[in-house]
Amino acid sequence: MNDLTQTPEMLIATLGARARRAASIIAQASDAQKADALRRAAQALRDQAPAILAANARDMENAAANGLSPAMLDRLKLDEDRIAGAAAGVEQVASLDNPLGSVIDTVVRPNGLELSRVRVPLGVIGIIYESRPNVTADAAALCLRAGNAVILRGGSEAKESNRAIHAAMVEGIVAAGLPSEAVQLVPTTDRAAVGALLKAAEFVDLIVPRGGKSLVARVQEEARVPVLAHLDGINHSYVDGAADPAMAQSLVVNAKMRRTGICGSTETVLIDRAYPSAGALVQALLDAKCEVRGDEAVQAMDARVIAASDEDWDTEYLDAIVSVRLVDGVEEAIAHIDVHASHHTDAIITDDAAVAEHFLNAVDSAIVMWNASTQFADGGEFGLGAEIGISTGRLHARGPVALEGLTTYKWIVRGTGQTRP
Amino acid sequence: MNDLTQTPEMLIATLGARARRAASIIAQASDAQKADALRRAAQALRDQAPAILAANARDMENAAANGLSPAMLDRLKLDEDRIAGAAAGVEQVASLDNPLGSVIDTVVRPNGLELSRVRVPLGVIGIIYESRPNVTADAAALCLRAGNAVILRGGSEAKESNRAIHAAMVEGIVAAGLPSEAVQLVPTTDRAAVGALLKAAEFVDLIVPRGGKSLVARVQEEARVPVLAHLDGINHSYVDGAADPAMAQSLVVNAKMRRTGICGSTETVLIDRAYPSAGALVQALLDAKCEVRGDEAVQAMDARVIAASDEDWDTEYLDAIVSVRLVDGVEEAIAHIDVHASHHTDAIITDDAAVAEHFLNAVDSAIVMWNASTQFADGGEFGLGAEIGISTGRLHARGPVALEGLTTYKWIVRGTGQTRP
Repeated sequence: MNDLTQTPEMLIATLGARARRAASIIAQASDAQKADALRRAAQALRDQAPAILAANARDMENAAANGLSPAMLDRLKLDEDRIAGAAAGVEQVASLDNPLGSVIDTVVRPNGLELSRVRVPLGVIGIIYESRPNVTADAAALCLRAGNAVILRGGSEAKESNRAIHAAMVEGIVAAGLPSEAVQLVPTTDRAAVGALLKAAEFVDLIVPRGGKSLVARVQEEARVPVLAHLDGINHSYVDGAADPAMAQSLVVNAKMRRTGICGSTETVLIDRAYPSAGALVQALLDAKCEVRGDEAVQAMDARVIAASDEDWDTEYLDAIVSVRLVDGVEEAIAHIDVHASHHTDAIITDDAAVAEHFLNAVDSAIVMWNASTQFADGGEFGLGAEIGISTGRLHARGPVALEGLTTYKWIVRGTGQTRP
Repeated sequence: MNDLTQTPEMLIATLGARARRAASIIAQASDAQKADALRRAAQALRDQAPAILAANARDMENAAANGLSPAMLDRLKLDEDRIAGAAAGVEQVASLDNPLGSVIDTVVRPNGLELSRVRVPLGVIGIIYESRPNVTADAAALCLRAGNAVILRGGSEAKESNRAIHAAMVEGIVAAGLPSEAVQLVPTTDRAAVGALLKAAEFVDLIVPRGGKSLVARVQEEARVPVLAHLDGINHSYVDGAADPAMAQSLVVNAKMRRTGICGSTETVLIDRAYPSAGALVQALLDAKCEVRGDEAVQAMDARVIAASDEDWDTEYLDAIVSVRLVDGVEEAIAHIDVHASHHTDAIITDDAAVAEHFLNAVDSAIVMWNASTQFADGGEFGLGAEIGISTGRLHARGPVALEGLTTYKWIVRGTGQTRP
């Protein structure tokens, strides 16, 4: 497939034209056929587990030889359980409600024209991702179920694993009578192909980068195609003076420590000076083996607290570290969040409903929470099924993005011969 | 205001930071206060009509000296009626339903978490426009009513008119107790300021270009900020074999000839070979003083028909010219539209409901119509009130974009102390 005389632009144009044709077919296919394709793909993943594991072993060997970090090796590694998990994930996407065809709203105009907005597929979606090869299955399933064709471009470290998983997905799609070009894998790990994909506005309607900050930054910088990007999660939990101490303690420890490496984890805890149990809260974090970096007041609470620097208030640790600051009530908390948050997920803990509603209204983040752990910031926890990502942009889709975010709408106008005066 | 030692980037950063602060205030202001600001702005436009007309006269004088075309001079010119129209337009935006605060959907999860998506402002919007100075009032009104701050950058030919209209808008906004920085006009017509605005992703959430193709193309090429763009309207009216001839004739003539210069006008008519009155239809277009460029079959219908070239099928005339082709039924019509349409607005005329529904489903355009004139492609005709533009992109908003398209949503999560297991 990878003709060395081709330029990256020619390669992407070839894949893109195939994807456009496939997208037209997928858009007209029944929902049952798409769900069937995904169920068959899940079965193919299970059936081909030995081949997928063998491919993954080759990737792991190369990766070890290339000195990849243990964390990256862990993300790259597949085993029976992870393949079973990927297959189950594909089946779960097949079981979600059909996101297409629903009528968003309808109006009948005084002249009798009936206007409806109806959900339709976005078209062709490009996914650019790193290391974790199960994205090949997840992302393909979500795009396909929403009626789109997808062009996948995985990392070079996972190329064998991605090819094997892609082959299983295509087997299921073809068995259901849909075109194999609905899910294409860029057949080269040449970085120039990424550049060409990012500029292929003629063929690609949306790019979703899935990976670390440097990948997302490069995609945002280079892309001429719209990008659904996920930047930092510098999230706050604000403990109001009227918070219940037991609830505050359990929420803050969970929000920070349940899993420290996910984008929904709390990175800064703001405590109202009027909150009576600040010392116990800080101690609970320390006892949970969290490093606490505090302002002077927080440092005075426990000798284990380290002094926070200015940078700490703008840092996404993704680790067992938290910055803690005392504030004068909800207004100062909102002002701090306005300046320092990445506007991903911010929470208030309080028993005062009026204060809570003020916070929920005034904090301009994708997700605002009252008396809940910021770790719930997740498409699955939101009941959306699998997510393609959490958008930190403001257009099209905000927060967890699942099937609906991979659709758009069209206007259908039904008349009886009306001409415009 | 225009310090010559400033770089364009510094200027835009200054305006942008002010706009961000104003956006926070506007977002929290009541809807009544925003509507009041617009009503006061409308009154200020009327009160300041003499100053606005004097400013416009200076622009017209310069424009004539610079040799602007008559069409551009007409777009630039203001008179009492046009100012009254702009004021009435601002009042109409004030009278629309509040687009903010409405709950898009709510779900209660098994763990008791209540999740709602609620409409909130987009933030800061940049408008880049040419000649028509009333855009200064229209665009400011729409952005403000949707809770956003706006940075306006009008054309150099209209700078005096734009300043005078901007001053009136700001007078109304300040009189209502809102910050003047909610509506800012870039105080220089230096083109480099446009470049800086297009790259100011830190300060601007959305750019809306309003003008000709070259302006939109430049904005799309240079922007690092998301763009709500309006490209061509290469629109089709397909006359099916089962169309009522009287209806078909009245719709096609209206769709093409009512106003030929608007983006919703039909540029190509596709006629089913099974349609019995094709000759009369072509003659009606010719009799309406429309130049007809046809394929061979159409040329045979009337000596006045000119031969269509390959380019005609991909041309947006915006003039009293139409391309006409015979096709073999709805499938060939859909295939032609798929290749040649700009996917703006395409219509079918037929009495066969099944054929119509197939067309509405299969044609992937922002607006698809059955038995209606494509000239209805307009936010006002759709009941949206004034429109900021018609989006030919697929993300965020498609087709006519009015207040709702200038908003986004946030997720509000209400809990009772839930931690994530």
